[in-house]
Amino acid sequence: MIPIVSIVGKSDAGKTTLIEKLVPELVRRGYRIATVKHDVHGFEVDREGKDSWRHKKAGAHTVVISSPNKVALIRDVEEDQALEEIREKLVRDVDLILSEGFKREVHPKVEIFRKEKYTELLCTKDDKLIAIVSNQAFDMGVPVFDLDDVKGLADFIEKKFLQPKEKKAIFLFADGKAIPLNPFVRGFLTKAVRGMVSSLKGCDGAKRIEIRIDSKDE
Amino acid sequence: MIPIVSIVGKSDAGKTTLIEKLVPELVRRGYRIATVKHDVHGFEVDREGKDSWRHKKAGAHTVVISSPNKVALIRDVEEDQALEEIREKLVRDVDLILSEGFKREVHPKVEIFRKEKYTELLCTKDDKLIAIVSNQAFDMGVPVFDLDDVKGLADFIEKKFLQPKEKKAIFLFADGKAIPLNPFVRGFLTKAVRGMVSSLKGCDGAKRIEIRIDSKDE
Repeated sequence: MIPIVSIVGKSDAGKTTLIEKLVPELVRRGYRIATVKHDVHGFEVDREGKDSWRHKKAGAHTVVISSPNKVALIRDVEEDQALEEIREKLVRDVDLILSEGFKREVHPKVEIFRKEKYTELLCTKDDKLIAIVSNQAFDMGVPVFDLDDVKGLADFIEKKFLQPKEKKAIFLFADGKAIPLNPFVRGFLTKAVRGMVSSLKGCDGAKRIEIRIDSKDE
Repeated sequence: MIPIVSIVGKSDAGKTTLIEKLVPELVRRGYRIATVKHDVHGFEVDREGKDSWRHKKAGAHTVVISSPNKVALIRDVEEDQALEEIREKLVRDVDLILSEGFKREVHPKVEIFRKEKYTELLCTKDDKLIAIVSNQAFDMGVPVFDLDDVKGLADFIEKKFLQPKEKKAIFLFADGKAIPLNPFVRGFLTKAVRGMVSSLKGCDGAKRIEIRIDSKDE
């Protein structure tokens, strides 16, 4: 499961700027990073009048724009997506998801705080606060990094979330929900599935095996 | 598997305009449609200077912008994505994928042709042409719909690709590639996997079961 860390802070605390510094530091260390940002004001699909904009305007639920080095996707949703849903349904092939905001969710949080702007932190200890980035000392039982200490913060995140990588993993989803598996079931399922498909052409030696069963009208 | 139909035609034949008419006709009939468009010129993530644009500029592999009614995702790719990959990795919850272009791929194609513009079709019979939309008659062994007959084209697509829905399906992917399964293996895998997980809390009665095994450093 891709770890999620939320960069939170009051309005204008410098969340985007912190992400702008943290991402390249982590990328330099060899990690692929996804960022997630909430935009209550909505956004436009591409530029007005362009083909993909016209597709969406015509009522397409999902519009994909594909280019040789980037792919964009815009899709309708019925409500605000939780980070969990975004991770499950949209994000692949990255080592870490950094969200800007999403303070109300249950994921580990790093708060950025500037003493010139506010007098109190946004987070309490109940908020799963794991670190503070600030020009002020705090006694919250979590490390406090200086506003400029991006390396220190990156070390902390790397140690906590990016090492060591799991060598093997099995995931089971039922109707899109992750089913918790104990070590015995993990081992049993992994071996049973690998065994079943091992003699099928193309499966032998494959690093990733995915099986999906759909039963629409049972 | 979500069906894919490609709307193809020579430059300026009216592909986007046809999609603009076809999408609302299919949406009116209750289907959810995804469109896919190739953009060789690339595109920008949101507007310059906006937060998500800054995230991408900072080196994020993937950027997600979430709003209460739309979600956008932009991610890096190493080469042009085939429609197959776009279907497998990005598109969910739709009944049909309409691509604009992608003529060289193997999916069923509808060619739009205007006699004022060209003298010859883009597609040959080898191209999996399934219909033509034109103001000229053709003897290609596929139906020809008038330029204005969007209803006729929608009927044709609906009949061919949207009814009846498959009741049961199992998919197996190895390193992202779909592994073909014969009916015996389908039945065997479906029953074995369902049997294995049936006693796990949350799995009983689930319509969709997904298992993913990752072995990163084997």
